[in-house]
Amino acid sequence: MTAPAQVPELDFVFHPRSIAIAGVSAKETAAFGGGGFVSSLQEIGFRGPIYLIHPTARAIRGIKCYPSMRDIPAEDDIDYVISSVNARFVPQLLEDCIAKGVRVLHLFTAGFTETGDAERAKMEQAVIARAKEAGIRLIGPNCMGLYVPEARLAMMNGQTPEEGPVGMVSQSGMNAGEFIRYAIPRGIRCSKVISFGNGADLKAADFFDYLADDPKTEIIVAYLEGIQDGPRLARAIRKAGERKPVAILKSGRTEAGSRAANSHTASLAGSLQIFDALCKQAGALRVESMEELVDMAVTFRFVKRLSGPNVVVVGGGGGASVLAADDLAAAGLNLPPLLPETQAELAKITHEAGTSIRNPIDTTSLWEEKGFEATLMPCAQAPNIDVLLYHTSFGSGPGMRQVGLRDRMRRQADTLARIQEQSGKPVVVCIRPSVTAEAFEQSEEFQDLCWRNGLATYPSIARAGVALGNLLEWQRLRE
Amino acid sequence: MTAPAQVPELDFVFHPRSIAIAGVSAKETAAFGGGGFVSSLQEIGFRGPIYLIHPTARAIRGIKCYPSMRDIPAEDDIDYVISSVNARFVPQLLEDCIAKGVRVLHLFTAGFTETGDAERAKMEQAVIARAKEAGIRLIGPNCMGLYVPEARLAMMNGQTPEEGPVGMVSQSGMNAGEFIRYAIPRGIRCSKVISFGNGADLKAADFFDYLADDPKTEIIVAYLEGIQDGPRLARAIRKAGERKPVAILKSGRTEAGSRAANSHTASLAGSLQIFDALCKQAGALRVESMEELVDMAVTFRFVKRLSGPNVVVVGGGGGASVLAADDLAAAGLNLPPLLPETQAELAKITHEAGTSIRNPIDTTSLWEEKGFEATLMPCAQAPNIDVLLYHTSFGSGPGMRQVGLRDRMRRQADTLARIQEQSGKPVVVCIRPSVTAEAFEQSEEFQDLCWRNGLATYPSIARAGVALGNLLEWQRLRE
Repeated sequence: MTAPAQVPELDFVFHPRSIAIAGVSAKETAAFGGGGFVSSLQEIGFRGPIYLIHPTARAIRGIKCYPSMRDIPAEDDIDYVISSVNARFVPQLLEDCIAKGVRVLHLFTAGFTETGDAERAKMEQAVIARAKEAGIRLIGPNCMGLYVPEARLAMMNGQTPEEGPVGMVSQSGMNAGEFIRYAIPRGIRCSKVISFGNGADLKAADFFDYLADDPKTEIIVAYLEGIQDGPRLARAIRKAGERKPVAILKSGRTEAGSRAANSHTASLAGSLQIFDALCKQAGALRVESMEELVDMAVTFRFVKRLSGPNVVVVGGGGGASVLAADDLAAAGLNLPPLLPETQAELAKITHEAGTSIRNPIDTTSLWEEKGFEATLMPCAQAPNIDVLLYHTSFGSGPGMRQVGLRDRMRRQADTLARIQEQSGKPVVVCIRPSVTAEAFEQSEEFQDLCWRNGLATYPSIARAGVALGNLLEWQRLRE
Repeated sequence: MTAPAQVPELDFVFHPRSIAIAGVSAKETAAFGGGGFVSSLQEIGFRGPIYLIHPTARAIRGIKCYPSMRDIPAEDDIDYVISSVNARFVPQLLEDCIAKGVRVLHLFTAGFTETGDAERAKMEQAVIARAKEAGIRLIGPNCMGLYVPEARLAMMNGQTPEEGPVGMVSQSGMNAGEFIRYAIPRGIRCSKVISFGNGADLKAADFFDYLADDPKTEIIVAYLEGIQDGPRLARAIRKAGERKPVAILKSGRTEAGSRAANSHTASLAGSLQIFDALCKQAGALRVESMEELVDMAVTFRFVKRLSGPNVVVVGGGGGASVLAADDLAAAGLNLPPLLPETQAELAKITHEAGTSIRNPIDTTSLWEEKGFEATLMPCAQAPNIDVLLYHTSFGSGPGMRQVGLRDRMRRQADTLARIQEQSGKPVVVCIRPSVTAEAFEQSEEFQDLCWRNGLATYPSIARAGVALGNLLEWQRLRE
């Protein structure tokens, strides 16, 4: 999990000192397209100057506009250009970029190969060839580009400037956005997130390679639709997989998905079996959904490692516990009965008879101030247990009396963290979905307290089970 | 789907005119146990008198207490008793019930067979025998009892008095509560929900039988842990399955789950294969999770029937559409490309080139006032399409500008309902999960508008896919 400290080759792509955006509508209300990039960069606090290219407007969102790249003062260097112009204007924009000494052109512009039109595909090829000749690197076309907190680059509004260890390679900007949106409240912070669309120049392989080298990236996740330059991609994933935990969501699993991927980013999905074999060989984990990808980022970040498949499940509600046992067993985990000595210790502090303290553990002592830790600690310390899964929910149930709830949440999160530390075993927290806004806020608050205390959180026991099972499989792959 | 109009045999169980509760702690703060039943019944507005049994207290929550059942005035009839006393006091309570002419005893009291203790199991047997001899029907032990909106009976706080067509048989009270909690915001209303625990007297078979006869119940869902009296249960499920849509979640699928079920409700889980065969034969659908059970209630209620497996997927975000295609295909559905004439019609109103209007449909016209209906209607009316799946989310993305959001939500829900009506094909709505409280409230509001307009709603495309695939399978079972 160590990476070389030297600066990776493509580092300049992720650290532009100045940006120009072409194709910002003067009347656009900042939601999407060129205007969206302006507002995202302003919001995250990009530190260099932003230049806007507009044929007639004097200024947009307080930023001066130039009719073309060539009208920007000669002494102002432009490192990075975002194109939101119509595809047919891209060749001219590229010439302007060359004249201006630009290093990276991000083509948000769509309408190339992915349209299925031969003329459009030819145009894409011509743009690539000309950029290559001039030494300009392209991101896209048809993509959202970069989210790099440390460089204060954002691809969408609402992306935090807080940095973290998770890097993402995504063929789809929307899925990159979804990943970030769902991962942030669970404690994931990102190093670099790349939406690369058609990957005409810089491809998935380049970005895997970069993230494998990047010292700021400790965990790599990816969303891929197609395979470009298979052998090179395989080498890059292998290199990444040797150095860091890698989880990949590959779409186009089915004929319909494959057709949709082709429409979306001109991708030929390729055989899933071949891709699966590639991942196995590379020590990378292949997952089946965006939810699972987020869950694996959380698992690699907070659980890190499991010593074995033995889970103790603790939480209120007999029926939920029974289903939990099924779900976890289906994910390849075990729920061994606690040993007689552990049960004897639990019997001292619970009122329940034998069966509620076997595993799953479902005792009323959990709802008592002292009983919470007294019940959980022996479970985590039990010699035949590798991981403790605590489940709860808000807005109903005996544990969730509203009086003093905030204090109790804080104490519970602290206690769970202490148990994780003292037992030396992972403690994971499942917070079942809420159905009222009040309960939703309470859940979010408890989730926040948990991850800030170093605990993995999941929205269901089934999803925690799949993630922990995945972690075990990934450990086996790497052995 | 028609049921006899005459009153089913067990109807008296569900319509008590008066209730006594034994085992209410005077200091209890109403969250669970005896006190919880008092507050639930008060909240839902039980129409008859409630009597409390307490050795010393004069009154609890404004209701007069009696030291024992025998102290209640002779002229006051008690139909239904809820026992929250310790298991060892149950035999005496039963004698008091017999003396008082009680018809139904609901034993919330746990600590019988499910403890694994032979003495406790013997005590349960003795209670059953004595009740049978005296003609008292038992619900439980170890269960939450009944939620019957029309009789104003609730098993937990927060349960709505609004009635509806869904009946539930549940071995677990917690899972019954979860089903209700998750189903209500998606437009499910209940006729009768029964948590029956150990099922010492009245068993799953009795309740299936009752719900099959009950004219107020049109859809039946169930959560089972064990099989009691297999041949009778099989007959009851078959009768229910012949008359009404039935979906069953059976836990104890795995050895660990089976052990947990045994701890929880003294259930012997039995072979899943045998149960599966039983369901198939009975035309009942077996599902794998609580989420799926809720989704099937929604699907039976709002989708009702599919003419075939061909889905058109409409919504924003290329990456999500690609994953959607995979998820739906994996659930046994098709995403056929729209016919040239449909594509030609769409091309008139969208700005996008060919591939975004094939299927999945992902066009910017969806974000425009008139474009929404103009895009969706031809998709639903397309001759090679059986169901339209619309997906959206709140708190991000181009369609979710905050200005005028509430009006736009209302217009969208109205339009979707009109499309469902005019096309004669089901329209289902997927609202992806939110990560902020504000977006959560918006999602809930849109979900509410949708179901009140007769639309099925789901929290993800994958779950909608599984539910629609299940519906097709259920239709095949019934053919």
